[in-house]
Amino acid sequence: MTQLSKTLELDDLKSTQPAYLESIFSLANGHVGVRASDPINPSEDAGTVVNGFYEESDIHYGEKAYGYADKNQTIVKLPDIRRITVYDDNRNKFDQSQLKDMHLDMAQGILYSTYELSNSQNESIELSLTSVVDQKENQFIGLRYEITGKNYLGNIKVEKDFDLDTTAQDSDDPRKSRGVTTLQYDSLNLQDLKGLRVTTDNSKLFVEMGLALSEDMEMILTLKDGPIKFDVLAIVGDIGQHISSTDLPTFESIKEESIEFWTRFWNQSEVEINGDDSLNKAIHFNLYQLESSAGRDGKTNISAKGLSGVGYEGHYFWDTEMYMAPFFAYTNPDIAADLIKYRYSILPEAKERARTLGVSDGALFTWRTINGKEASAYYPASTAQYHIDADIAFAIYRYFTITEDNQLIKDYGLEIVLETAKFWTNFGSFSEIDGKQRFCFFDVTGPDEYSAIVNNNYYTNRMAKFNLDFAIQLIKKFPEEAKQLGADKHTLNEFAKIRDAIYLPFDEEKGINEQDDSYFKKPVWPFEQTPKENYPLLLHYHPLTIYRYQVNKQADTLFADFLFDDISKEQLIKEYDYYEKITTHDSSLSRSIFSALAARLGLSDKAYSYFRDTAKTDLIDLQGNTNDGLHIANLGGSWIAIVEGFGGIQIKNDTLNIRNNLPDAWNGMTIHIRYRDCLLEIDYSQDNVQVKVLSGDPINIVIDGIKSTVGN
Amino acid sequence: MTQLSKTLELDDLKSTQPAYLESIFSLANGHVGVRASDPINPSEDAGTVVNGFYEESDIHYGEKAYGYADKNQTIVKLPDIRRITVYDDNRNKFDQSQLKDMHLDMAQGILYSTYELSNSQNESIELSLTSVVDQKENQFIGLRYEITGKNYLGNIKVEKDFDLDTTAQDSDDPRKSRGVTTLQYDSLNLQDLKGLRVTTDNSKLFVEMGLALSEDMEMILTLKDGPIKFDVLAIVGDIGQHISSTDLPTFESIKEESIEFWTRFWNQSEVEINGDDSLNKAIHFNLYQLESSAGRDGKTNISAKGLSGVGYEGHYFWDTEMYMAPFFAYTNPDIAADLIKYRYSILPEAKERARTLGVSDGALFTWRTINGKEASAYYPASTAQYHIDADIAFAIYRYFTITEDNQLIKDYGLEIVLETAKFWTNFGSFSEIDGKQRFCFFDVTGPDEYSAIVNNNYYTNRMAKFNLDFAIQLIKKFPEEAKQLGADKHTLNEFAKIRDAIYLPFDEEKGINEQDDSYFKKPVWPFEQTPKENYPLLLHYHPLTIYRYQVNKQADTLFADFLFDDISKEQLIKEYDYYEKITTHDSSLSRSIFSALAARLGLSDKAYSYFRDTAKTDLIDLQGNTNDGLHIANLGGSWIAIVEGFGGIQIKNDTLNIRNNLPDAWNGMTIHIRYRDCLLEIDYSQDNVQVKVLSGDPINIVIDGIKSTVGN
Repeated sequence: MTQLSKTLELDDLKSTQPAYLESIFSLANGHVGVRASDPINPSEDAGTVVNGFYEESDIHYGEKAYGYADKNQTIVKLPDIRRITVYDDNRNKFDQSQLKDMHLDMAQGILYSTYELSNSQNESIELSLTSVVDQKENQFIGLRYEITGKNYLGNIKVEKDFDLDTTAQDSDDPRKSRGVTTLQYDSLNLQDLKGLRVTTDNSKLFVEMGLALSEDMEMILTLKDGPIKFDVLAIVGDIGQHISSTDLPTFESIKEESIEFWTRFWNQSEVEINGDDSLNKAIHFNLYQLESSAGRDGKTNISAKGLSGVGYEGHYFWDTEMYMAPFFAYTNPDIAADLIKYRYSILPEAKERARTLGVSDGALFTWRTINGKEASAYYPASTAQYHIDADIAFAIYRYFTITEDNQLIKDYGLEIVLETAKFWTNFGSFSEIDGKQRFCFFDVTGPDEYSAIVNNNYYTNRMAKFNLDFAIQLIKKFPEEAKQLGADKHTLNEFAKIRDAIYLPFDEEKGINEQDDSYFKKPVWPFEQTPKENYPLLLHYHPLTIYRYQVNKQADTLFADFLFDDISKEQLIKEYDYYEKITTHDSSLSRSIFSALAARLGLSDKAYSYFRDTAKTDLIDLQGNTNDGLHIANLGGSWIAIVEGFGGIQIKNDTLNIRNNLPDAWNGMTIHIRYRDCLLEIDYSQDNVQVKVLSGDPINIVIDGIKSTVGN
Repeated sequence: MTQLSKTLELDDLKSTQPAYLESIFSLANGHVGVRASDPINPSEDAGTVVNGFYEESDIHYGEKAYGYADKNQTIVKLPDIRRITVYDDNRNKFDQSQLKDMHLDMAQGILYSTYELSNSQNESIELSLTSVVDQKENQFIGLRYEITGKNYLGNIKVEKDFDLDTTAQDSDDPRKSRGVTTLQYDSLNLQDLKGLRVTTDNSKLFVEMGLALSEDMEMILTLKDGPIKFDVLAIVGDIGQHISSTDLPTFESIKEESIEFWTRFWNQSEVEINGDDSLNKAIHFNLYQLESSAGRDGKTNISAKGLSGVGYEGHYFWDTEMYMAPFFAYTNPDIAADLIKYRYSILPEAKERARTLGVSDGALFTWRTINGKEASAYYPASTAQYHIDADIAFAIYRYFTITEDNQLIKDYGLEIVLETAKFWTNFGSFSEIDGKQRFCFFDVTGPDEYSAIVNNNYYTNRMAKFNLDFAIQLIKKFPEEAKQLGADKHTLNEFAKIRDAIYLPFDEEKGINEQDDSYFKKPVWPFEQTPKENYPLLLHYHPLTIYRYQVNKQADTLFADFLFDDISKEQLIKEYDYYEKITTHDSSLSRSIFSALAARLGLSDKAYSYFRDTAKTDLIDLQGNTNDGLHIANLGGSWIAIVEGFGGIQIKNDTLNIRNNLPDAWNGMTIHIRYRDCLLEIDYSQDNVQVKVLSGDPINIVIDGIKSTVGN
């Protein structure tokens, strides 16, 4: 079954630049990612990525200070497994290749690619490669090669082995990844397998890879009797685990599992737009790649580029909790739970980090990390973003609200929420503002990285307030478990006192929340004198220049407004209008929130326009760097925009609310989400919303403000 | 003639640790500095320093951004010229040495050192080395070695050559210097000279050095007939200039010039304390070393460690203008003028830097530099210290007020003052504060580096106000010259408008100036919970931890108070009291200002106590790092404390004012300063001040508030 809206083709894309295609068509399963390289002439970015497999190196500072991150953590680019070498009769290579077709079946998780190969005599053959990633044990990649003679019909010989990248180089662009030059490659002695162990010198990790070949590649094959077909099974083991050559799956069995997996996935996660095929395909692509990126073992997370490339060094950021986790919480809560378990696994490092930052109790999660330690070398836009603590608490809150999974809270969530709450109480301090004692946070950076080291960032303060409030709720709900973790009535009172006193900057004259204590005092960025080519600003202006103006890289105060929906519509409209004018959207995390909030406000055109850019960020290469990997947070952001924005999905007073914010351009939309024990199908048309319970018991929900009970 | 108070001996010092002694007893002449190494076993810090002779290297950032400094500038440590090798009859070295005596005659500029040397047979000889630095042509160092037999009276052979340091290593301590490993050493073919050219690979500079030996060192010498004496003349050429072996001075001629130079120096710069020999000697040491450190060619400046070591990489800071220049302006205005000329020479780089910082007109001097380009890798405590612009303008103002040197203003000063004034007008912006339009500066760092990236730092704003005011004065006084530089009546009005609108934070409740917009909102540093070993704080706390508290590394608002004397005594007492409580004096620039201000306030005990620490910072190794070089700014600070503090020297309304703030502990004090064309001798006793004009015409001054005319 081919679904057009779930088939991504070359015509859907901005370009056919090889590294760009490698990212777009990458296949992954949360553990291993395979960039869609040309098997004859892979780009220098081609390769395989294993979630969480990183090398350490010293961070060099021009000037170092106490408490700075001291080690880089860099995701390792493993050998490209798609590569083969094809020889002609005269032992000359078919070393030219031309891409003829590439398409990804997102309904089944299968990538098809076809190349015309030629040798120096201009003799040509056709190579097609079908690849599929194992979605069950997560260790296998099935590769089916088929070679057909064109104007060459002689004998061929094929070589298939690991191609080791020993030309790694460093880069100064923080959005790329530094090269890793401290890897050891060892051959493995395994029956019927070409095996390779890749060991990191400093982080002392290893991954084993294997290639199981269905044919004897030493044989000379002839094309004159028709196409030659052979399968290669690639194995990429877990970090620190040995691979084996027994009980290996076949290409067909991997394919079957993949079809089953993606069928189930779409049943749980469907988003179908009626009235815009191109956006419909874009959102399918986004969800497909988002699902592919997420670690499913509780030990790994979702890197900023997923498993589609090595950009941002494979680090995990707040992106997970605030942009990616909503999708999982509403469609695949097991993965949302795994992402929380990962944070729990690095709680010891977070406690240590809080001590390093001079805070006597509680935990401070690091801004960018794989192993839990801080890996950012620029603290004003990393360590100072203390809000990550509350972001993680918020992801737990969201998960809990949707699933009511008490066990996960008891086992993992409660401790995280208590430790982050404690952090805020020990990090902040009381200060008199307008004659009242208010609880303040000094020298912090909010989500908007175009301001840094400010006082009372609205988003940060609002999130801290939430974090304390949620901790209070959990202490009340799980008093025994809380007590075991040292939180009692005294804690509760302390938390409540501080929660109530947290200062939230508000500008009386403008009637809107102020991004931080001094934000509106600064001049507005001279947008009219700024040429287009000077965006993104961070590449063309010194941080001090950017910081001293009112200019936003991304949603900040508005993000808090979106999350908490706690200000009047009148204020929100003013606030949206004000901040929109000064936002550059230089971050790929920005437009989705502007879209979702606009949809909620009934600013339909704006919502739609931002959504279009969000949905197609990678397909149109909006940021110009998709070749380094996909913008995974934005993929999640596009789901937020469509489901929480247009679909008006929101949980209020412990009840699922749906509001129909469908854009005019669409005839309708169908989404599948989970809420509590139900899988729901929600059908939106221009004048109606219909909800069906696909599985589970009838539930009470609110549709466009009206309470109703829905069943199957 | 030996003056006890001008002879520094080992007994005056904290320790005899070799690297410490090398700094303390270093000899210099503004061009070349020679660390006082043990000639047999120099420490690894031993060597020769040439003012402004630096190598470049790439600055490596963990994360780089637009406009960051991209090259280190690192002062080169040149070969140690004191080193010799002495062999016994059996060609064994006298390789053990023990320091017997070292003393510095600061009245004449001669360093005496004596060592007992022994070989592996425990046979010993005595080596004494007398050294003196040429103060005329500035290229020569006279070294007189004398070897006397002790229980060894056989033959000796001496070797004397350059000892090349090829073991340079990097250091992470920002107060030290990184190692330079990119030097080329070439022998020079010069008659009667061992010559060496040292070339830097990246900055493409060279310095030539030579050793002229008075004896044929190949000869075997015998000790049994009495001591053996020989002279070595070391030559250290100007940067980029060839040295020659003709017209070389002798040891004696260098010595004579030195005596003449230092006699003249003390006549112009005398500070004599009557009643505390130890402090008297300390202040003599400070002035001696301060004078030795200052570049005298208009192309070089005074590095943070002078020429006594390679700490702080030989960079020039605001230290020059605010701590060192007062001494020169009042005692040796030619050097003060040279220091201004240096700034003029890097004005093109300062204009370029302003553009890089997004400011469309004017010049921004870089925070730490040799060649005019920014060399600091940590912008929150460097580039953000915009106040350096006004500091430089202030040094010009001070020089001009004292000397009335119109020509220097026309040729150099005016353009600097106009360019820095223009910077402020384009860098700042109007903002409404308490219903009024005030001119503000956002995201700046003041002198206190324990706060960073703040708004409206009092010191910065006050200095900017001064800078504009001074520019206005100069435009009025030199209208033709100003016009040629593009400054006319319109400029004057614009400057005046902004000067009058500059915002100065003041806290109504406390009744004192506030360090910045949000300073008093922050909690006070938990001093009581801070163990002594955690100072200096910067080595034990993350910058974000320090920044979020009220805690000062050094005088900030109080420094502005000291400079401008523009607030009531009542307010100043409150302000002093408030800021003193939260100041750690972790910077060596702090105590001198606290002392001077206390003296002015009549807080005699405090003034005296701070002065004692200031005066002896290096002699007692207060900061624990004198081995990296002397704290030159503090040497100048000690002069400020004694002359402007206790001596009450101040220029008000274009008139020299003297106030007798002599501490109780002293019987009296005599100082020599220049004012306009006069060299003055001012004698303070507990109940009297007497002023004598040593040279020049009678002038009107104010003594303890009373106008009087003084003559010779």
